[in-house]
Amino acid sequence: MSTAKYVYLFNEGRADMKNLLGGKGANLAEMTNIGLPVPPGFIITTEACIDFYSAGQQFPKGMEEQTLEKVKLLEEETGKKFGDAEKPLLVSVRSGAVISMPGMMDTVLNLGLNDNTVEGLAASTGNRRFAYDCYRRFLQMFGDVVLGIDHIKFESVLEDQKYAKGVEFDNQLTAEDWQQVIEEYKKIIKKETGEPFPQDPMEQLFKSIYAVFNSWNTDRAIVYRKVHKIPDDLGTAVNVVSMVFGNMGDDSGTGVAFTRNPSTGENAIYGEYLTNAQGEDVVAGIRTPQPIAQLEQEMPDVYRQFTETCTLLEKRYRNMQDIEFTIERGKLWILQTRNGKRTAQSAIKIAVNMVEEGLISKEEAVTRVEPEQLDHLLHRRIDPKAQLEVLAKGLPASPGAASGVVVFDADKAEKMSQEGKKVMLVRMETTPDDIHGIVAAEGILTSRGGMTSHAAVVARGMGKPCVCGCDALKINYTAKQLSVGDRVIKEGERIAIDGSTGHLILGEVPMIDPELSGEFIKLLRWADEIRDLGVRTNADTPEDAAKAREFGAEGIGLTRTEHMFMAQDRLPIVQKMILTTTLEERQEALNELLPMQQEDFYGILKAMQGLPVCIRLLDPPLHEFLPNVEELALEINKMELTGADAGEIKDKEALLRQVRSLTEFNPMLGHRGCRLGITYPEIYAMQARAIFQASAQLVKEGCDIIPEVEIPLVMEANELKFLKELVTKIAEEVQEETGVQFDYTVGTMIELPRAALLADEIAEDAEFFSFGTNDLTQTTLGFSRDDAEGKFMHHYLDRKIMKENPFVVLDRKGVGKLMKMATEQGRKVKPDLLVGICGEHGGEPSSVEFCHIIGLNYVSCSPYRVPIARLAAAQAAVNNKEQSK
Amino acid sequence: MSTAKYVYLFNEGRADMKNLLGGKGANLAEMTNIGLPVPPGFIITTEACIDFYSAGQQFPKGMEEQTLEKVKLLEEETGKKFGDAEKPLLVSVRSGAVISMPGMMDTVLNLGLNDNTVEGLAASTGNRRFAYDCYRRFLQMFGDVVLGIDHIKFESVLEDQKYAKGVEFDNQLTAEDWQQVIEEYKKIIKKETGEPFPQDPMEQLFKSIYAVFNSWNTDRAIVYRKVHKIPDDLGTAVNVVSMVFGNMGDDSGTGVAFTRNPSTGENAIYGEYLTNAQGEDVVAGIRTPQPIAQLEQEMPDVYRQFTETCTLLEKRYRNMQDIEFTIERGKLWILQTRNGKRTAQSAIKIAVNMVEEGLISKEEAVTRVEPEQLDHLLHRRIDPKAQLEVLAKGLPASPGAASGVVVFDADKAEKMSQEGKKVMLVRMETTPDDIHGIVAAEGILTSRGGMTSHAAVVARGMGKPCVCGCDALKINYTAKQLSVGDRVIKEGERIAIDGSTGHLILGEVPMIDPELSGEFIKLLRWADEIRDLGVRTNADTPEDAAKAREFGAEGIGLTRTEHMFMAQDRLPIVQKMILTTTLEERQEALNELLPMQQEDFYGILKAMQGLPVCIRLLDPPLHEFLPNVEELALEINKMELTGADAGEIKDKEALLRQVRSLTEFNPMLGHRGCRLGITYPEIYAMQARAIFQASAQLVKEGCDIIPEVEIPLVMEANELKFLKELVTKIAEEVQEETGVQFDYTVGTMIELPRAALLADEIAEDAEFFSFGTNDLTQTTLGFSRDDAEGKFMHHYLDRKIMKENPFVVLDRKGVGKLMKMATEQGRKVKPDLLVGICGEHGGEPSSVEFCHIIGLNYVSCSPYRVPIARLAAAQAAVNNKEQSK
Repeated sequence: MSTAKYVYLFNEGRADMKNLLGGKGANLAEMTNIGLPVPPGFIITTEACIDFYSAGQQFPKGMEEQTLEKVKLLEEETGKKFGDAEKPLLVSVRSGAVISMPGMMDTVLNLGLNDNTVEGLAASTGNRRFAYDCYRRFLQMFGDVVLGIDHIKFESVLEDQKYAKGVEFDNQLTAEDWQQVIEEYKKIIKKETGEPFPQDPMEQLFKSIYAVFNSWNTDRAIVYRKVHKIPDDLGTAVNVVSMVFGNMGDDSGTGVAFTRNPSTGENAIYGEYLTNAQGEDVVAGIRTPQPIAQLEQEMPDVYRQFTETCTLLEKRYRNMQDIEFTIERGKLWILQTRNGKRTAQSAIKIAVNMVEEGLISKEEAVTRVEPEQLDHLLHRRIDPKAQLEVLAKGLPASPGAASGVVVFDADKAEKMSQEGKKVMLVRMETTPDDIHGIVAAEGILTSRGGMTSHAAVVARGMGKPCVCGCDALKINYTAKQLSVGDRVIKEGERIAIDGSTGHLILGEVPMIDPELSGEFIKLLRWADEIRDLGVRTNADTPEDAAKAREFGAEGIGLTRTEHMFMAQDRLPIVQKMILTTTLEERQEALNELLPMQQEDFYGILKAMQGLPVCIRLLDPPLHEFLPNVEELALEINKMELTGADAGEIKDKEALLRQVRSLTEFNPMLGHRGCRLGITYPEIYAMQARAIFQASAQLVKEGCDIIPEVEIPLVMEANELKFLKELVTKIAEEVQEETGVQFDYTVGTMIELPRAALLADEIAEDAEFFSFGTNDLTQTTLGFSRDDAEGKFMHHYLDRKIMKENPFVVLDRKGVGKLMKMATEQGRKVKPDLLVGICGEHGGEPSSVEFCHIIGLNYVSCSPYRVPIARLAAAQAAVNNKEQSK
Repeated sequence: MSTAKYVYLFNEGRADMKNLLGGKGANLAEMTNIGLPVPPGFIITTEACIDFYSAGQQFPKGMEEQTLEKVKLLEEETGKKFGDAEKPLLVSVRSGAVISMPGMMDTVLNLGLNDNTVEGLAASTGNRRFAYDCYRRFLQMFGDVVLGIDHIKFESVLEDQKYAKGVEFDNQLTAEDWQQVIEEYKKIIKKETGEPFPQDPMEQLFKSIYAVFNSWNTDRAIVYRKVHKIPDDLGTAVNVVSMVFGNMGDDSGTGVAFTRNPSTGENAIYGEYLTNAQGEDVVAGIRTPQPIAQLEQEMPDVYRQFTETCTLLEKRYRNMQDIEFTIERGKLWILQTRNGKRTAQSAIKIAVNMVEEGLISKEEAVTRVEPEQLDHLLHRRIDPKAQLEVLAKGLPASPGAASGVVVFDADKAEKMSQEGKKVMLVRMETTPDDIHGIVAAEGILTSRGGMTSHAAVVARGMGKPCVCGCDALKINYTAKQLSVGDRVIKEGERIAIDGSTGHLILGEVPMIDPELSGEFIKLLRWADEIRDLGVRTNADTPEDAAKAREFGAEGIGLTRTEHMFMAQDRLPIVQKMILTTTLEERQEALNELLPMQQEDFYGILKAMQGLPVCIRLLDPPLHEFLPNVEELALEINKMELTGADAGEIKDKEALLRQVRSLTEFNPMLGHRGCRLGITYPEIYAMQARAIFQASAQLVKEGCDIIPEVEIPLVMEANELKFLKELVTKIAEEVQEETGVQFDYTVGTMIELPRAALLADEIAEDAEFFSFGTNDLTQTTLGFSRDDAEGKFMHHYLDRKIMKENPFVVLDRKGVGKLMKMATEQGRKVKPDLLVGICGEHGGEPSSVEFCHIIGLNYVSCSPYRVPIARLAAAQAAVNNKEQSK
């Protein structure tokens, strides 16, 4: 077996060899090949790193020999030599991962210096102080990074020296001072490692390479990768580059620049530089860097060369670049280029402008903006310039910022809001009983519950800021106050939350309203041209529907009728309906609800005229509309002990018995969804009647409406058949009673594994399918969202048992497999079956992509995620077209 | 289009034309063709009935003409004529369904009688009284069955006549008396229908056929079919048979006989007859019938002819026959034959004897016994001769009978049982906290909960009688009494339950112990030779294991370690383990549990030596081991209101907070199964250690043991990988510590849809799969067993939305599809993967058959169902071999 090629000269690589050479290395190679002034160097591949680990942290066979060869070539090219007292070759050794992990891994600069070569450097630069400063920096860096000696030890020597010399800053020390420091450093190294500092540059080099390889698996690197979802098995490359110096006088300098403005997107070079300085000096902040434009005055030729380089690199990479450069005695060196990070606003502007400049296609433009970034632009946010007093941090459950006075219960929140006050609803957790309070509040803050707790889900649906699971918060309902540590906040005091960061902030906070720029709108239009998937919204009110329509929704994929049941004026009627034992009394209550539901549907269908509106019949278990068992039991107990009226106690006990009889062990798997329609057909009949009476009314008024009646939680074709007959009968009755004809369809949610498995049978009676992936995920994985996120999801993610929270990112392997089967089987029976998704995944880019791949007709998401879904759908179309080429 | 052949003469049919001719008709045809003396007749087909319904309850085209033809042939063959005053043809018209529905459908006898022909009958029989009795019976039957007149109206005429004549019994009335009755009957018919009684025999015939067709869809017939799971679309045939009379003198008679004893299986004709009588007289009970043996004395020729007929029919049908016969003036007529119903004991003996007689094969023998029937033989039962005071009826949740004194709580049950008292545990419902009480009790009675409630499942597992959901029962824990209506029973009073019928019985009751006959054992051995499926048992104790082994279990398919955690002496340690927040304290509690668990496993492995024992690591959510939230809250409330010690209240509140934090919204989908092993690896480590230390000990003692370690609730290969590593590490540690080598395997439950969908990945790390079909059914259908059975399952069965309760009979279409996929995918990766089932379906015959079809290695069920599973597995092998031929 021949050994692998482990070491590449820059001119042997290319930009597309990123996996082998790392991001930085591939770009250095690319720049070298297009003739840009890159200091000569070579790259040790990621493969070497991977083989290093599989060999038990040993250099793989052949790597050392190859490195020696390349060092020789480097010496020839630079005319310098490792260890040469006159023209010493100095190099930097840096990690270069495939996916950038800024600040995470180790770097050694000025490698090659020793007691001999430092003098060579002093002579060639004519600056002893500089040379010895370099040397002591190298010793310090090498000691810390390569030899693992605590950097405090070096720093205290430095502090002692400054103290002894009576100076404040490093740059006040002389060459001789540094020489003394260097002697101390060498002693530290000897003492800590038992070996003297290695004078041999080759030994320095291999030790450094070893250290860089090792830095791939430091704790902080592992944590970083976990946070940023970078695989652990990529390995890092090592870049060995000959040093250039920006501190060789006023014709030298160093800087960083973006080819366009990373915060606004403006097409002008943006950056800063320092003359007579090294990169570190910029970071140290001792001198203030100058804006890059200044360079035009100081070194016009260099500046011209630099701007040409920017243009060249943008053309080459077809993207905005983030460039590091050094000027050594009037000569420009490019040390690094990479795609520049940018704000959402900048990303959009750059993408749109580059299309207009003919640099990229529309298809590329839509892939240039992270859909999740848009979220930020669609909500009010805290002025980034504001000074904030952040009290605590919870989960960023629903984006946007809000402020208001603290209120602890929903009724009061509603009352105060009606009085014109802006309120912040603060609860341990919310339940459906709190809906009116959530509606009334500016934002919601809870101390318990995860990203998919009730508060989070409802708030996201309403586009209302929410911070959840803020466990530093102690809430005392009785005392009407919350506390964080010693800090107590009483009801009525003002707080703010930032639902994008999870921050809880004290007092009033300045806000910025969202702006939808012309470029934003243009980009989304292009996305619409490109995507195959339709984008609908989940909306329960005419207001939500109108908002979503503004954001480009092409219909409603889910209207939850139960939210309408929760309204304060309806709940008593709903409870009456549930608690009665006779059909007559239930019918009476339903008759009261009918005109209200009809009005609801009238409003939504009207707001969406011309577009389809999918209305789900009642879904949640009935006891969700009833008082809590434990609270009732406590109340009765109290009544008994305080000698309340026996009749009243009896009534309460009867109520408790009824509520208890409706309580379920596992409500998620209980008496809900179409099971309610089968046991109480009169409830679904009322809802169907409300939909159709509203439809008839609108048709009469000349509106074009497209109602879709959706049966939830089907697991068996007979359920759908039974309920479809019921709905059809009501439709015919209403058409006869009103004399108005209207179109409608009847279909079903696919949200249980059995429904997916039997999709062919179910498709016989369904005109559409809509995947309810929240429930489908829960049942396929046997994983309760509410329970898992609080109790064990983090273990699963920490231990990498799962890569993603399946309630956030659709589980393609399990849930996705069922979705694919169901879609295929359904379409086998009905080739034009309309298939969509309405779970929360409908607004998450990776999940949207999967829906594109399996050929769904549309995704549906909350109004504020509609633009995100539009963009994600376009990206899915582009990325998967490329793949299939 | 030519019309169908709707009418068959007996000699045109065959036994295998049952679907077309109905059971009775096909057998009459068969007997006619083999030369037995069957009265001539014809059959109108089930197809005619089906077409009758599809034509909107109209005779199908051609049926009437064909009937007229056959009547003519019948007249020719009998030498009698419809309506002939001298030799009138009289016929019976009876329904004849494909699957017998005894007593459900209508019959008209003596059809053809009218004012004219009655005189002919009188002349030919020489018995006017008899002729007029026949006529009035016909009028009454025709009026009731065909014309739909309430039979009370006829009966009151009869009662008036008897009163007027001063007699007590019908047979004391004279011909003239009957003539008067007949005139009154005709008046009733005229008055009720507006038409006179039809004198024309053809009109009588077609009206009767119409009535029989209609009787297919009476309410009672529909209910019967639902109860007995007979399809609604089979239709009934109609048998028109010329009448023969057993009441024409002492050389006439009528009787019913079985070719073998239907209750013991003894090979001797068993039955009874009456001379000079009609079938009705036997039923009326006015005269006592004589045993069939008596016939040998009275009519030796007839008796010999009858015994020959019995032999002939048994040979023909290769089964025990139930035969109706009539002797008319010394001539034997066979009116019906069918496979005789029999007790389990008889079925077994007959099947075994018939094999020994060379009549049937062993394969046929094993299909001749309903597996469910065996249940009866395996449990103590109430002496069928006993006089019982049945107080109420609940669900027959776990078979067998038991009696004991009423006790309302588990602790007391345990205490009294230790004092040697036989107790009956009576609870509204049971929870895992009651386990020790269930263990101590003779039987369990609950007022709430279905066939799969906690009490039912646990009791069946222990083979302990249980009656559940007895809702007539009012239980008052405070007063320590139960009541049914006005009847009050106090703690300490004696009751009995019959878990096979659901009866609650007052007082002491005589019992019969189960007997396993030699034939039973022989039949099961044949079953063992025939079946492909292995049969294991679910057992949690050495006693259960030993019992199951006696019943033929070939290993343990499921040992639930949590039941061991519930023991009274361990629960406090378990609770300590759960409630601690530090790993150290948890480890301490686990260290206490370790020797106890080791002892458990030692006992079970030893009881099962030589056979595999599959041990499932901890599965239920931890809060199942903790006190109930609502009860705790009430207790605290009471303490507060009564001014208890503040410190004690604080402690209780802390406990409540902890318990609450462990409480889940949907525990079935929550923090349980291997999720516990992942968040608390130390718990699984302790259990693995206990298993392996027990294994090492047994190997040292020379026992051959085969432990299988099972990881529950896996949904992702990484879970299994992580926990398998843990288990393997512990095994290696124990082997090193003890110096003993032992074999073991590690595998997983497949009980979540995702596990089934990803079975190929999971099989990589699994040495076996075991389907947990209880959980798999719950998640695939999104159907909580506990909630569904109480709240809406009956609607689903009533409305035929589902044909079977999927928790009783495996849902082949949904759950079964997943099982098939998982088995195939798993074996694709590991061709010799061991695959079994351990849900309750493992002991249900149809589910066992499905397991055979998809090629599982074994089923596992509770000890008392092991013989049932052995037989069902053999039947599956036989039935599916035949199908594939």
